[in-house]
Amino acid sequence: MARFVTVSDPADPRLADYVRLRDVNLRKSLEAEHGLFIAEGEKVIRRAVGTGYPARSFLMARRWVEPLSDVLERTDAPVYVADDATVQAVAGFPVHRGALASMKRLPLPATADLVADARRVLVLEDLVDHANVGSIFRCAAALGVNAVVLSPRCADPLYRRSVKVSMGAVFAIPYARMTSWHDGLSELRAAGFTLLALTPDQSAVPLDKALAAVEGPADRVALMLGSEGDGLSSRWLDEADHAVCIPMSAAAMANGVDSLNVVAAAAIACHALMR
Amino acid sequence: MARFVTVSDPADPRLADYVRLRDVNLRKSLEAEHGLFIAEGEKVIRRAVGTGYPARSFLMARRWVEPLSDVLERTDAPVYVADDATVQAVAGFPVHRGALASMKRLPLPATADLVADARRVLVLEDLVDHANVGSIFRCAAALGVNAVVLSPRCADPLYRRSVKVSMGAVFAIPYARMTSWHDGLSELRAAGFTLLALTPDQSAVPLDKALAAVEGPADRVALMLGSEGDGLSSRWLDEADHAVCIPMSAAAMANGVDSLNVVAAAAIACHALMR
Repeated sequence: MARFVTVSDPADPRLADYVRLRDVNLRKSLEAEHGLFIAEGEKVIRRAVGTGYPARSFLMARRWVEPLSDVLERTDAPVYVADDATVQAVAGFPVHRGALASMKRLPLPATADLVADARRVLVLEDLVDHANVGSIFRCAAALGVNAVVLSPRCADPLYRRSVKVSMGAVFAIPYARMTSWHDGLSELRAAGFTLLALTPDQSAVPLDKALAAVEGPADRVALMLGSEGDGLSSRWLDEADHAVCIPMSAAAMANGVDSLNVVAAAAIACHALMR
Repeated sequence: MARFVTVSDPADPRLADYVRLRDVNLRKSLEAEHGLFIAEGEKVIRRAVGTGYPARSFLMARRWVEPLSDVLERTDAPVYVADDATVQAVAGFPVHRGALASMKRLPLPATADLVADARRVLVLEDLVDHANVGSIFRCAAALGVNAVVLSPRCADPLYRRSVKVSMGAVFAIPYARMTSWHDGLSELRAAGFTLLALTPDQSAVPLDKALAAVEGPADRVALMLGSEGDGLSSRWLDEADHAVCIPMSAAAMANGVDSLNVVAAAAIACHALMR
């Protein structure tokens, strides 16, 4: 059973996990240092706990205690109860969803272990936008991708905004982070994956055609997506088995609409992987 | 040739088109009243002008005059040149792309005229998020959708954020706005379109199967997408020829990941329409 503690001082050191939630740089270092992440809102908190992440603490307005009572009954973590003004003063913005949890991160698996039983894998290189990472995890989870592998510098799926945009899908799909960008793809290749590099370049093989041509012992495909601005690095493009593209309308190309955003491309790619 | 006017007073009434660009409610009424929209950044301004929208005026830092000289040479509109601080004081935020244009809206076509020669149409019901509308237009344009029809209350594709997120694709694809939500779909039906209503409901017909089954004189399909929170209204779902879904992974459903966001769904649907 959780311990309930009423708090009213935004500077209370016990609330240090929750400070300035919109300050990306502060949060990155704070969350890395303490090995935590923030779950926001009843649904996301419920999913984080249900996935097995241990809670460090909770911070919520009193009206959220009852809806979350089943969760709070099964934790030993302190539950800080405060009025909305205090929560806002700590978090630095009005927390519309009213309930926050500071969760302990768990060690990530090694890439080789992650993909040992996977058939469909996404590989994300250096995405910078947390909302995009969250959206891509949601697509991947919904469309049956088995695992996601991140480049060393790719944005964090457990950052508050990623978690929120993913609707908790970041908990539903296992992921790993490469320790080396340089050698990162070799483990996937060693595990027998065909590496497909998605590019807007229309001279590449159409994705559907490339997927139809994949013939391996277990039909294992790793689809690589690059960063929002520049796409995949030339090194990773070179290392892929095939560069693949989503064919675009000729009229669109003539009109200067020559690419999709990375979330749209990921959605189409995950859908194609599922069939 | 444009007239260049140096300005330094953020309260200068000639800059009224550009005030408080992040104040959604103010901008909605101001833009409707004056029949204008804002294009932001060199690329988007170039596309807006290239599409045939007349410029009311431009507002930019001096460094943008030269890169846009070819555009400015062919306009009679005033070009207000100001330092970054003045532009920021007017717009209400730091305009990183440095150049703004106030463009005159053009009359929208009637739905019947819009779709007269179209084969693939998207119909958007009451989307509220401008970024989603922009992203969906980008997908639609890139993947060969011929036209977009908006419900009366659907968010504005020419709102600054829609335009920006679409990368100018809102200029590349023609659209109309229904005058009546109640009767809005009847014009599409009268034009011979098969109406497919996209829903997360997994008991609906899979989209690919429904598309394969469409047999009409010209294979005309209107794909309907609902709002972010509630999806399509029950009235529109009832009026559709078929409710269709994007099949999701059974494992994901079991994990509580039971839908895609509307942009991901639109991307997959546009891709399916193109094939």
